[in-house]
Amino acid sequence: MGNSENDSRMIKLTVEYDGTEFSGWQIQPNRRTVQGEIENSLKTLTQEKVRVVGSGRTDAGVHALGQVVSFRCRSGLPLPTFEKGLNGLLPEDIRIVRAEELGSSFNARRDAVSRTYRYLLSKRPRAVDRQYVWYPRMTFSVGPMEQASKYLLGAHDFAAFCKSNGEDKDFTSRVFSVDWNEDDDEICFEITAMRFFHNMVRVIVGTLLEVGRGRTTPEGFREILESRDRRQAGPTVPPHGLYLARVDF
Amino acid sequence: MGNSENDSRMIKLTVEYDGTEFSGWQIQPNRRTVQGEIENSLKTLTQEKVRVVGSGRTDAGVHALGQVVSFRCRSGLPLPTFEKGLNGLLPEDIRIVRAEELGSSFNARRDAVSRTYRYLLSKRPRAVDRQYVWYPRMTFSVGPMEQASKYLLGAHDFAAFCKSNGEDKDFTSRVFSVDWNEDDDEICFEITAMRFFHNMVRVIVGTLLEVGRGRTTPEGFREILESRDRRQAGPTVPPHGLYLARVDF
Repeated sequence: MGNSENDSRMIKLTVEYDGTEFSGWQIQPNRRTVQGEIENSLKTLTQEKVRVVGSGRTDAGVHALGQVVSFRCRSGLPLPTFEKGLNGLLPEDIRIVRAEELGSSFNARRDAVSRTYRYLLSKRPRAVDRQYVWYPRMTFSVGPMEQASKYLLGAHDFAAFCKSNGEDKDFTSRVFSVDWNEDDDEICFEITAMRFFHNMVRVIVGTLLEVGRGRTTPEGFREILESRDRRQAGPTVPPHGLYLARVDF
Repeated sequence: MGNSENDSRMIKLTVEYDGTEFSGWQIQPNRRTVQGEIENSLKTLTQEKVRVVGSGRTDAGVHALGQVVSFRCRSGLPLPTFEKGLNGLLPEDIRIVRAEELGSSFNARRDAVSRTYRYLLSKRPRAVDRQYVWYPRMTFSVGPMEQASKYLLGAHDFAAFCKSNGEDKDFTSRVFSVDWNEDDDEICFEITAMRFFHNMVRVIVGTLLEVGRGRTTPEGFREILESRDRRQAGPTVPPHGLYLARVDF
């Protein structure tokens, strides 16, 4: 086989993982990472050294229901084997939901038009599911949080809600939708945006909780967003309530 | 303080636990058990040696959303302290949902009129929630399973569905209801009965799956029930899809 791009295939994987036991998505030396595990299993399966690209870099402890991964390989394996074969090789906290073959120019990171993250808040202490939902030990009302979250819609500089000493310099993004769902046990906040920066959803939820507790108002939340000053915003909530739910292309 | 029953209080706790890391409910030497952890924490909280009674003895790996526990103690602690204090002392895979004070004759085991168990089957491989739902790697249809499960209703000798070399000798019980719910991801089977025997729900689900796979019919399921012969029934499905959901008094 040659090694030009014409000989290679572009595979897209939709991946679910439980972030509890990972040091996040991105490969790091001597750490258990999702990218590292997927690349290891792909190497075993294809007998090639494969580098994968993910649509979103989730932090340690953050889960994914629909992370999207792309990679190029020369293997002639049938497509279903990428799903079933990888699920046989991967640790049980990573599952391949779907494998597809796409045009060779596809890139899971560059071609994503939006990412949807979900944050689950529990209304009561939990034993079952405690790794998958955060229980804030505080009293708060969802109404004002929902109201405040509308200010996120549209194009903004989200510096107030992002880790300030991180790698990112430009914090502009566009939020397409925010959505709230509540049942007897939990509150689900979903946010879809063009892109997300380090800690962005977790600081947004932490700041919305300040609104829910009455420590600031929805209008105050808007002022925090406009301040572009991380110090104005609320605390970063724990990673285990957060999910990369979906990526759209 | 005296030590007659008149000096003592009867406390009822509703308890949720994640069975993953437990050798079941019942206290055993050198094993991590739910009963053992609760008695330890109660000893710390009340400074008394307390023996608790549970409504159902769940096996290793089986979860509970509404196990009910009763115990007698002489402690003058206010009732909310049993909930909050125990939740502070217990490991995070056990949570007290509610504490109530009842008449001194209450007994969580003897006074329960029915127990409701739930079994969750996943329709797809999972990473998130994999400890809380079983994914059978097989094709099956729910319709015939639902039909077969109706034969469980009423009073029967359930020996066919119970561990035969266990402690139980009499396998008669009365099933009050069976209920099925299905969404895109999972199938939930709920069964309410007067009492359950060792492995009963897990063997029932394993046998219903034989029906769902077309290996036997709903009518064949009825014959298995009537045979009272464990060897006629299907395999015991894994514990991690099973929950003690509710106990009624």
